[in-house]
Amino acid sequence: MTINQPKGFRAAGVAAGIKPSGAKDVTLVVNDGPLDLAAGVFTRNTVKAAPVLWSRQVLATGRAKAVVLNSGGANACTGPEGFQDTHATAEHVAATLGLGAVDVAVCSTGLIGARLPMDRIRAGIDAAAATLATTPEAGLDAATAVMTTDTVPKQAAVARDGWTVAGFAKGAGMCAPNMATMLAVLTTDAVLDDVDTPLRAAVETTFNRLDVDGGTSTNDTVLLLCSGASGVTPTPEEFAEALRELCADLAAQLQADAEGATKHVTVTVRGAATDTGALAAARQVAGDNLCKTAFFGSDPNWGRIAMAVGNAPVDFDPADLDITLNGVPVCRAGAAAEDRSKADLSGRDVLVEIDLHAGPGEGTVLTTDLSHGYVEENSAYST
Amino acid sequence: MTINQPKGFRAAGVAAGIKPSGAKDVTLVVNDGPLDLAAGVFTRNTVKAAPVLWSRQVLATGRAKAVVLNSGGANACTGPEGFQDTHATAEHVAATLGLGAVDVAVCSTGLIGARLPMDRIRAGIDAAAATLATTPEAGLDAATAVMTTDTVPKQAAVARDGWTVAGFAKGAGMCAPNMATMLAVLTTDAVLDDVDTPLRAAVETTFNRLDVDGGTSTNDTVLLLCSGASGVTPTPEEFAEALRELCADLAAQLQADAEGATKHVTVTVRGAATDTGALAAARQVAGDNLCKTAFFGSDPNWGRIAMAVGNAPVDFDPADLDITLNGVPVCRAGAAAEDRSKADLSGRDVLVEIDLHAGPGEGTVLTTDLSHGYVEENSAYST
Repeated sequence: MTINQPKGFRAAGVAAGIKPSGAKDVTLVVNDGPLDLAAGVFTRNTVKAAPVLWSRQVLATGRAKAVVLNSGGANACTGPEGFQDTHATAEHVAATLGLGAVDVAVCSTGLIGARLPMDRIRAGIDAAAATLATTPEAGLDAATAVMTTDTVPKQAAVARDGWTVAGFAKGAGMCAPNMATMLAVLTTDAVLDDVDTPLRAAVETTFNRLDVDGGTSTNDTVLLLCSGASGVTPTPEEFAEALRELCADLAAQLQADAEGATKHVTVTVRGAATDTGALAAARQVAGDNLCKTAFFGSDPNWGRIAMAVGNAPVDFDPADLDITLNGVPVCRAGAAAEDRSKADLSGRDVLVEIDLHAGPGEGTVLTTDLSHGYVEENSAYST
Repeated sequence: MTINQPKGFRAAGVAAGIKPSGAKDVTLVVNDGPLDLAAGVFTRNTVKAAPVLWSRQVLATGRAKAVVLNSGGANACTGPEGFQDTHATAEHVAATLGLGAVDVAVCSTGLIGARLPMDRIRAGIDAAAATLATTPEAGLDAATAVMTTDTVPKQAAVARDGWTVAGFAKGAGMCAPNMATMLAVLTTDAVLDDVDTPLRAAVETTFNRLDVDGGTSTNDTVLLLCSGASGVTPTPEEFAEALRELCADLAAQLQADAEGATKHVTVTVRGAATDTGALAAARQVAGDNLCKTAFFGSDPNWGRIAMAVGNAPVDFDPADLDITLNGVPVCRAGAAAEDRSKADLSGRDVLVEIDLHAGPGEGTVLTTDLSHGYVEENSAYST
């Protein structure tokens, strides 16, 4: 289940000395074809990192033959010089692999506001290009070299009849809290003529439903590369379903490794007027610090959930509000029902079900708790 | 500087046994006139506590003669029975003081979702009515009996030529995080014919600019009572200015006592297209957990501020973004300027100045850091 498991892909990950720790920090993924279709989804943050600005241009062509990624620096808020650094990175990969720079997407992750050490980036690209391989070890190296505060590499693959879609992701949250980046690279050897539509659909219902701390980073990027090397053409529905399964798997891995998280919280809102409204209400609860600290304390304090959903931009009658915690109906018709102490939140998984009784809309968001570990990791980073 | 300092007001605060600790928990404030003008500003949360629903009706008349407040229970999410409890509370105050129930506003603060012990409420009202006084001690008791996780009572007064405006507030945040309530009662003996306009204006630029954790509670209420007992008629401008000064003082006291806070953070955004846009950008930074944990760590990690402002619903060119931390220009034109280590955030006060260079709009929000103390207090409350 590595990034280079689909046919037509090679990968590598090396230590280039960008991270002071000496850990792996440069990843290269190459699509050897025959197809070179690609699609990308990027951060909606107004402040976009240089590699996002560059890769958006590359993906606008609908094609890409290689992706180079570095950890140890986000190359965001680095001015025109930072963009030149990204361009030079793509140029160096292109020269090394015999491609054009416009064939090479670039991703970066790490501290915002600092320039990258370009000599080390170039040396890292040379070393990575020299070790590109189709082995699981090379794929694991590629998934490892993008890690920052991640404690484990995150990889997944979905195999179907004769074709595969696979990928890796990094990030300790939707906004990887310490370094402002969630990155994922996905590959497939299915024969496709449209990769953009299924990628946008899959991202919307998986990565975009994970919210660790409400911050959308300057570098968020999900890329999908298609080699077509399996020779097998799935139906659009088959591919979309497999891609969604892959993205959901990677999103769950991001949630599981979120900084300081001790709980995996699923917030489902039903009965909103629209799905959009339900999702907005779920996001409000998932992003509320009072709810998140209550989850950390295994405290079935449903009044905070009522408060949070009441702050969401969604219409409902408070007298109809139902809240269920891990299966226990603690609030019915806007008032206390079963004794809150019956809701056992001491385990790792917390399921919050909210019914607004105002329509057919439904939506789910994954989140985590707000713990001492989160505060600890995020109060001592750049200095 | 107590609530009963303006002429025409008596106050009391007693222990009625609602709080298990035995601390004071019932407050009564009475306006003896000659005027009985009053105005109220209430939570915008869709889920409104019973006392908010009641007091909104009372204040719709533009008049009120008494306010009764209890801590130890929010009376929110308590259904029709909870509303009957609030009504009965107002009826009991009215019967005790020889008023009509429609003359009596009610405020509650504490855990959401639990009914109030009405026998104790009634006994508390009797005890409070028996001790109503114009002394500073009685005023302090009134300010004390509304406290929940507040560590100090919060009182202020602004005296002008022959008239005074005074008040108390409670809350460990805009949403007092543990009990979902920020309450303030303000009094004045100035002779006025409109108290609603100046109250709304003052609240908008003081209490509504404080954001501890983004949660607007089910019980938030600010009331202003006018006795006219000084016989002095200030100009509307004079009164508005004094009221704003009073509210700003109380808001600063709320910020200073916010749960777990170790920093007082002021976020000022300039150069937005509109004041509304500037305020939205300031709120986004003030509400961002990555920024708040960096403040806790005294970490001048301005990249997180750039990330947060980039997520705000406001247009600007990232290449124009300036960020100044405690006077040090750490980011200019969207990239690093002075070395971040020169910005000393180790003290209590942190001033974040952001310039978007996109127009004349300006706005300021007060907030606090996200500390271990906040997580500690909020992860162990209802159980």
